[in-house]
Order: sequence, then C-alpha cells, then structure tokens
Amino acid sequence: MSSSSNRQCAACKQLRRRCTSNCIFLPYFPPTDPQRFSFVHRIFGASNVAKMLQKVEEHERGDVAESLYYEAHCRIQDPVYGCVGIITLLHEQIYDFQCQLAKVEAEIQVVKAQQLGSKNAWVK
Amino acid sequence: MSSSSNRQCAACKQLRRRCTSNCIFLPYFPPTDPQRFSFVHRIFGASNVAKMLQKVEEHERGDVAESLYYEAHCRIQDPVYGCVGIITLLHEQIYDFQCQLAKVEAEIQVVKAQQLGSKNAWVK
Repeated sequence: MSSSSNRQCAACKQLRRRCTSNCIFLPYFPPTDPQRFSFVHRIFGASNVAKMLQKVEEHERGDVAESLYYEAHCRIQDPVYGCVGIITLLHEQIYDFQCQLAKVEAEIQVVKAQQLGSKNAWVK
Repeated sequence: MSSSSNRQCAACKQLRRRCTSNCIFLPYFPPTDPQRFSFVHRIFGASNVAKMLQKVEEHERGDVAESLYYEAHCRIQDPVYGCVGIITLLHEQIYDFQCQLAKVEAEIQVVKAQQLGSKNAWVK
C-alpha cells in the first residue's frame, strides 16, 4: 500500500477518490474503522453527511459524526424504528420508574402512618 | 390545480416528477403535509428513504416513514446531536429516577427500623 492510500480517510477510500488534507471526512472517519463510514453512507448518503458536518462549527463535528454513526447503526439493527425504538423503550422505562417511585412513596406514607398510630396507642 | 397534480404525493411534487399509483412515497407522504417529505429528504435523501421503505414489509412502512420523520425533525432542531440528544437526556432522567428510588427505599428502611426500635423500647 502506498503512503498516499494510507492517508486516505474511510470515506474517500470507499468512494474511490483522492483524499485531500482538507477533506471534511478525514478527521472523523479514519481508514482504520471502515464500518463507521459505511454505515452513515448507507443511511444518510455521503453528500448529506458532508453537508451536516459542514453546517456546524469545527469543534462540534466529532459529535455530529458520532451521533450520525449511532443513528445509522440503530437503523441498520432495526430497519423499522431505528433509534426511535430506543427512545420509545426509554420512555417506557421512565414510566415504570415513575410507577415504582409512586408505589414506594405510598408505602412510606403507610409505614409513617402506622408508626404514628402505634405511638398514639402506647401513649393512650 | 389539475386533478393529476392533486394526486401527486409530497415527494413527487417536490421532486417534480409524475406520481404513479404504485409510487413508494404516495401512502406515507401526502401532499397535504409537504414538510414531512421535505425534512426526510433534507436529512436522508429521497433515494435512501425509498430504499428504506422498500426494504421492509408493506405493513411496516408507515412506522418507517414516521420514525424517519421523527429523526429528521430532531436533526433539523439539533444539528449536532439529533435524536441522540434526546436519548442522552432520557438516560439522564432514568439515572435521576434510579437515585430517587434508591433514596426513597433507603428512607423506608430507616422508618421501618425506627418503628421496630420504638416498639422494642415500649416492650422493655
């Protein structure tokens, strides 16, 4: 492998084009992790990913690449709901916690009332 | 407006092409809600949306369109994190609930121990 192909990012390698030093993908899609670009390319398309990276400040681009990869990964795992399936699941977990919390809080009120009742009984 | 353009789905209208009765977008992107297609088109691209719809069973396509619209909407609202920002937020809420629950459960143990201690004191 030539030194030139070593410098190619995963995007340029998969799109079979020359990777320049100012390539928008280069810092976020290293050639060592080809799946990362392959996933976002399959779901969003390379041109949309480039647009989304260009749209934000440079210091935010790492988070854009990471969140797009997460979304793409979820969509490949679950072609119907993607990461919206995870959001639904987390909402259900939150609802369960709210129910548990309400139950435990009700229980604490009962125990406190019993405590008070028992004290009053001894005082009498 | 002619009856032909009335039958166009939002996708074919925006892409300026003829909408056939077997158009993949037609049932999920009605012309009455142009923003719905506009958002998924901007984030995923029309061709990727069509591929994702075609990939699943017909009865699942409504959910695919809905979840893609949700993701696209989130990405437009939050270009850095998209709906992954919501997932992070929900995880934080779950962590808060776990802490609250642990605190209330500890509290109930204290109250029960006090109750037992107070009974024992009266018995003595």
